[in-house]
Amino acid sequence: MRATAQNAELALLLEVAGTPKPGNVDRHREFDDLRFEHFLAGAVGAGDGLSAATETDVGVGEAFETAVEGMADQRGGNTQFGALLLVVPLARAAKRGNLSPDGVAEVVADTTVEDACAFYRAFDHVDVSVRDPPEGLDPLDVRRGSDAVDEIESRSITLQQVMELSAGRDGVAREWTEGFERTFRAADAIAGGEGPVTDRAAETYLWLLSREPDTFVATNHGRETANSVMVRAQEAREGGEDLVEAFAESLVESGINPGTTADLIAGGLFVALERDEVRV
Amino acid sequence: MRATAQNAELALLLEVAGTPKPGNVDRHREFDDLRFEHFLAGAVGAGDGLSAATETDVGVGEAFETAVEGMADQRGGNTQFGALLLVVPLARAAKRGNLSPDGVAEVVADTTVEDACAFYRAFDHVDVSVRDPPEGLDPLDVRRGSDAVDEIESRSITLQQVMELSAGRDGVAREWTEGFERTFRAADAIAGGEGPVTDRAAETYLWLLSREPDTFVATNHGRETANSVMVRAQEAREGGEDLVEAFAESLVESGINPGTTADLIAGGLFVALERDEVRV
Repeated sequence: MRATAQNAELALLLEVAGTPKPGNVDRHREFDDLRFEHFLAGAVGAGDGLSAATETDVGVGEAFETAVEGMADQRGGNTQFGALLLVVPLARAAKRGNLSPDGVAEVVADTTVEDACAFYRAFDHVDVSVRDPPEGLDPLDVRRGSDAVDEIESRSITLQQVMELSAGRDGVAREWTEGFERTFRAADAIAGGEGPVTDRAAETYLWLLSREPDTFVATNHGRETANSVMVRAQEAREGGEDLVEAFAESLVESGINPGTTADLIAGGLFVALERDEVRV
Repeated sequence: MRATAQNAELALLLEVAGTPKPGNVDRHREFDDLRFEHFLAGAVGAGDGLSAATETDVGVGEAFETAVEGMADQRGGNTQFGALLLVVPLARAAKRGNLSPDGVAEVVADTTVEDACAFYRAFDHVDVSVRDPPEGLDPLDVRRGSDAVDEIESRSITLQQVMELSAGRDGVAREWTEGFERTFRAADAIAGGEGPVTDRAAETYLWLLSREPDTFVATNHGRETANSVMVRAQEAREGGEDLVEAFAESLVESGINPGTTADLIAGGLFVALERDEVRV
């Protein structure tokens, strides 16, 4: 039986292997500077941090920072930051024996100021696209990385509170504040599908994309574009394989990359693997 | 920096990601019962054994058996047995600080009867296609798995000696007896190539395939077929991309799978990664 940390790593690998996953790197599509192999190396590199996520004497924040540092040890840049931000607390919940919305909400509620500091330090290892912080919160801009740690400490902000500040703008942070609802929904869809797991993951990706605007797209291209991508995802789903491929090509050409939706799939794959609801 | 065991795991992943790799599973080709995802799970599952390969107090045979047991924990069957049989002693040589033909020859020379027993036990975990043993050596047929262990012990046969018995028929065993010559040659070719590492791996695969008959093909389809595959690999290389794709299709249709050549690529990728001669 695979260990929890191995399921976490495999989830990252299965996520990137699923195709077609319009707008994201997959087995059949990559960019010159962000290739399939970077995701393979990112998943392997995250291994130590994923193991740490299953060691209950290591903080969730520290485990995340270790995972990000290892993930970033390849030339593609940010491959799996958001995915790790979902998978690490889920792995901790699994280790505690309660891989459920309640279980992961407890993990979130238990986070400390030290976890928040480690989360900020993770931004030192890799460039991540994020929105500007809410007005008046510039000192807490995550892009400051470890430079913001004094501020976090002096304000006694926990990692849960950090996520609450971003939940309105960032779909991964929103999972933290809403019991990982979309992640568990993705897990159920993947588990309920048919055929090879990478195909199910790709189908679930398109389904999620057609239901809610991707916040990573909104961050980089504005909310209108994110809405349009959502509508087109629904059209592509209804139109069948050729339309999905055409949609994929068009997103790549426009440089539009629904990264948050891919992150949710990685989280969902982990849940489904760990619950033994899908077998590879 | 990636640990040695992580480079070993990444080598397995990059090997299967390289395309086109005529006759083998790659990013663009798979079989109904042996899919890309099985290789991802195989690589992740091998992780504990690959770590053990870098712990000098664990026998090489035991590390190999652990790696195979973990690799086999997926539904595709034998995905990376031969690759692990190359990568495990190479990882040990790297850990000893001498990743070279001489260094790995020392690892081979140091193998014990206990390593041989563990190697036989590895066959309990997965079905492997192998030739009948040489005449009079039925008691040492590897397919007997742990049932052969008493025989190995009573004859005091080391793992090096086991490999010597198979070197004439099996390209992986031959690496053990010839200082991993082809593996290091593959590493040099991959390191000397240009472009993404998975492309280089695929090119080197075709080059190796065009130079020597693949022993896995010889085992399953006879030496004549293996020779013909070698000649056609050379023609495909000379003919360019379309011919390579056509060659790939034809091998898949005939169920011909040059697995030993793929194993050598995995070994070569590990050497090139570990020597920092290729970067991902």
